[in-house]
Amino acid sequence: MILVRIHVTLKKSVLDPQGTAVTRSLHALGYDEVEDVRIGKYLEVKVKTTDKRMAEERVREMCEKLLANTVIETYEIELVEA
Amino acid sequence: MILVRIHVTLKKSVLDPQGTAVTRSLHALGYDEVEDVRIGKYLEVKVKTTDKRMAEERVREMCEKLLANTVIETYEIELVEA
Repeated sequence: MILVRIHVTLKKSVLDPQGTAVTRSLHALGYDEVEDVRIGKYLEVKVKTTDKRMAEERVREMCEKLLANTVIETYEIELVEA
Repeated sequence: MILVRIHVTLKKSVLDPQGTAVTRSLHALGYDEVEDVRIGKYLEVKVKTTDKRMAEERVREMCEKLLANTVIETYEIELVEA
């Protein structure tokens, strides 16, 4: 079994209204030191294989097809033996 | 400036309907090797300070008050010099 950690984040050039809203809320709570907040998705996918190369290749496909909207998002993959 | 990476994830004991739905979609796309998917939030918070201890303490407070629902979620904090 391989555990794959995936970070899906908005491209730098893309506005993050959710992040902006959280920044405002934190300021309203008195956390003025907060300069910026960016929010993305964090996924943990368990894959029934021991072939790391295959697992990475297949998870990249999953990201391209379903898990990330590659027009506005980028993704990072990290494999961990589960 | 300090960049703080935050992972907010559902507690192990909490069902993840979103993760279950994604697992089914991946199976429908032919990725039968996927055993389980858990989905959480990934936040990057830029804090205007150089005091790491203070930054960590304040970000923990932010998580407790706003960024995580500590009844069903846990959070992990990682500090990175920006």
